[in-house]
Amino acid sequence: MSRTDDVDGTFVTDPSNVDPDKSVIATYYVDAEFSTLKAGEQIAIEESIGTWTEVTTTRESVKRLAGKVFSSQQGNEGIIKIAYPLELFDADSGIPNFLSIVAGNLFGLAPLRSVKLLDVDLPRDYVKNFSGPRFGIEGIRKIIGTLEERRPHVGTIIKPKVGLNPKQTAEVAYQAAIGGVDLIKDDETLTNQSFCPLEERVSNVIEKLDKAMEETSRKVLYAVNVSAYHEKMMSLAQTAMSNGANCLMVDVLTAGFSALQALSSDTSFKVPIHVHRTMHGVFDRNPKHGIAMIVLAKLVRLAGGDQLHTGTAAGKMEDVGKSVKVINGFLRSKWYGLKTVLPVASGGIHPGIVPNNIEALGKDILIQAGGGIHGHPEGTRAGAKAMRQAIEAVMSNVSLEEYGKTHRELALALEKWDRRYGKETD
Amino acid sequence: MSRTDDVDGTFVTDPSNVDPDKSVIATYYVDAEFSTLKAGEQIAIEESIGTWTEVTTTRESVKRLAGKVFSSQQGNEGIIKIAYPLELFDADSGIPNFLSIVAGNLFGLAPLRSVKLLDVDLPRDYVKNFSGPRFGIEGIRKIIGTLEERRPHVGTIIKPKVGLNPKQTAEVAYQAAIGGVDLIKDDETLTNQSFCPLEERVSNVIEKLDKAMEETSRKVLYAVNVSAYHEKMMSLAQTAMSNGANCLMVDVLTAGFSALQALSSDTSFKVPIHVHRTMHGVFDRNPKHGIAMIVLAKLVRLAGGDQLHTGTAAGKMEDVGKSVKVINGFLRSKWYGLKTVLPVASGGIHPGIVPNNIEALGKDILIQAGGGIHGHPEGTRAGAKAMRQAIEAVMSNVSLEEYGKTHRELALALEKWDRRYGKETD
Repeated sequence: MSRTDDVDGTFVTDPSNVDPDKSVIATYYVDAEFSTLKAGEQIAIEESIGTWTEVTTTRESVKRLAGKVFSSQQGNEGIIKIAYPLELFDADSGIPNFLSIVAGNLFGLAPLRSVKLLDVDLPRDYVKNFSGPRFGIEGIRKIIGTLEERRPHVGTIIKPKVGLNPKQTAEVAYQAAIGGVDLIKDDETLTNQSFCPLEERVSNVIEKLDKAMEETSRKVLYAVNVSAYHEKMMSLAQTAMSNGANCLMVDVLTAGFSALQALSSDTSFKVPIHVHRTMHGVFDRNPKHGIAMIVLAKLVRLAGGDQLHTGTAAGKMEDVGKSVKVINGFLRSKWYGLKTVLPVASGGIHPGIVPNNIEALGKDILIQAGGGIHGHPEGTRAGAKAMRQAIEAVMSNVSLEEYGKTHRELALALEKWDRRYGKETD
Repeated sequence: MSRTDDVDGTFVTDPSNVDPDKSVIATYYVDAEFSTLKAGEQIAIEESIGTWTEVTTTRESVKRLAGKVFSSQQGNEGIIKIAYPLELFDADSGIPNFLSIVAGNLFGLAPLRSVKLLDVDLPRDYVKNFSGPRFGIEGIRKIIGTLEERRPHVGTIIKPKVGLNPKQTAEVAYQAAIGGVDLIKDDETLTNQSFCPLEERVSNVIEKLDKAMEETSRKVLYAVNVSAYHEKMMSLAQTAMSNGANCLMVDVLTAGFSALQALSSDTSFKVPIHVHRTMHGVFDRNPKHGIAMIVLAKLVRLAGGDQLHTGTAAGKMEDVGKSVKVINGFLRSKWYGLKTVLPVASGGIHPGIVPNNIEALGKDILIQAGGGIHGHPEGTRAGAKAMRQAIEAVMSNVSLEEYGKTHRELALALEKWDRRYGKETD
């Protein structure tokens, strides 16, 4: 690796000098007024020991804590990596401290036209401070009863997203459950609004899901959205639990990673946590600025999410599909003893694109459809059936068209939606 | 307002039909594949009643909750406003619920090439659910003793940002206090790292600040960074308080608005809260995508921040200066009985650009310098003196150059930094 003229060099290193067991290594895309290495130096300095070098470089005890940059790319635009000494982090303070270091003021550095945090590599000694998911994929399969079958799961959101009262919500939930879904989730904007208060909603839905279980012997999870400021969230979660909730849901980006960590670490809540990523487009949509979804996914796993929305593989944007595959791969990978996270594929899903998603993302997945279930010509129950039939077809290695010949609900769905990609975002 | 052909129209309204007392009105910039009005309809639908119109428009009880768009701009790019019925929001759930509605999935809508939430107008009936800052500008002036003098305040961060042990940190704090600063803040990345544990840091710094107060009779605030996941944050805050802390600090974007609300609503912490905005560049830097700082500033005031970093007015980017003025104006404005927030001007500040900042932002401000104090040729104490002298000059209507003739520390600072804009970001 050569150094360019305008690089100070104090904070540049060779990758061979970096000990991955004692560093957090962050990968950034940068577009700067000067070389990527110099940009990296500015980030490394800003996010470790300080800003004005004449002040900060004077003490050896301080220099020890400095981030170091390395990159094989020349020019003003490209990928750099920064190794931050593990000692810089306070793992006990959790994700807030982590983000304040690897994703903090650097986004405001004037000479950087744009900068995106693309990935983070965390050493065992950092990860071990977090307990991670309490259930993970195997735990959720055990609850739902798919440990042996190992098929993909089907989820749905109640539609309309909001506006139904508790009894109407419960009726839709019942139809979806009878039809065959494994999980029903609240909308990410719904918590305890007066048109559908949480306590009444949970008690009504759980009553209907119990009825469905009597009829079908299948267990259905209901992810109750408790996204709120801390005290209210904990009180909503308590209310949900005492009304029979079997799954809690949190909007991790609007409520904060602290909220997720608070829910997952409260051992009185013995249920999986469904993590919604609403607002992620602020972070990950711009390819050149912000924070990539894989980073957020790693933080969700640290903070204890059992299920995480990751988008779908069967979109029109090929690169979105690829990044979803990477995220799904990470969520299911071994990671220093932390349990796995069940990826939730959602956004424009209907039976016609189920095979693409399973082919790309595998079977350890929850495939979620909203309009793709409730918009079925014969309604919610038939819509849920059609989704399950699509999964059965894939599990039996039969084409959807073939399976549709003997499965009316699937045939109707295929007729309505074909294989086009839907418009949903959640 | 005319409707374009491709607009459904169901979710378009005329501004005269919107009741600002019963709506949250959000202003967005959109760049879409189709007209701004149609883009607005998609946002309004997505963030209120649902996604697939054939499902969602069937019930009148649901339609009542739909967001409505209005805009006077034609074309595919421009400003739209959406009025969300107040009933959609659960104010008790706080900022997470608010963000999940006005800044949620819309950022992922495929037909929107980019979208930025530029502002939000909140009615009294929403704002009154929040208690806001407990101290505000007047409360902070009372603590520091500037109620009558009404001069701008001076703050500093310890430099090096991190890497000093508690005793070294306390010594720098002492020098800054003797020199004349009103507030000393932790770095946004520092919480309880082993090189500078919080308890030892607070007890050492407060001891030195007490000593400084004996010598100068001036009270100095020390903003202790407690940014961590909820339980840890509350325990760090308790530790800080029992060691004499007189101000708490939180990184509101990495810890979450819930963290701020938790600190501000705990009445056992009888101290102001200093709010750092690290990571704001992810949200506000791109002019066409994300969330504008004025929105975050409004949420900070709701959630109870007493001081907020807003950037400086004296930068090279004229429009940044303008937006900082708007934010400063809001933080000091009347807002349905909520107390004000003290704006913190920081980023590249040194004595030479103090007059510009006061001229642009007024005197109800905290002007913060890091390198612009510690980088002074004669060190931290002289650097703090030079900042106070610059403020004295402005308060006396004397030019810095003139004042420097009889004030050695200011003269040295002007010689070193001139009137150029510094490089700091915090």
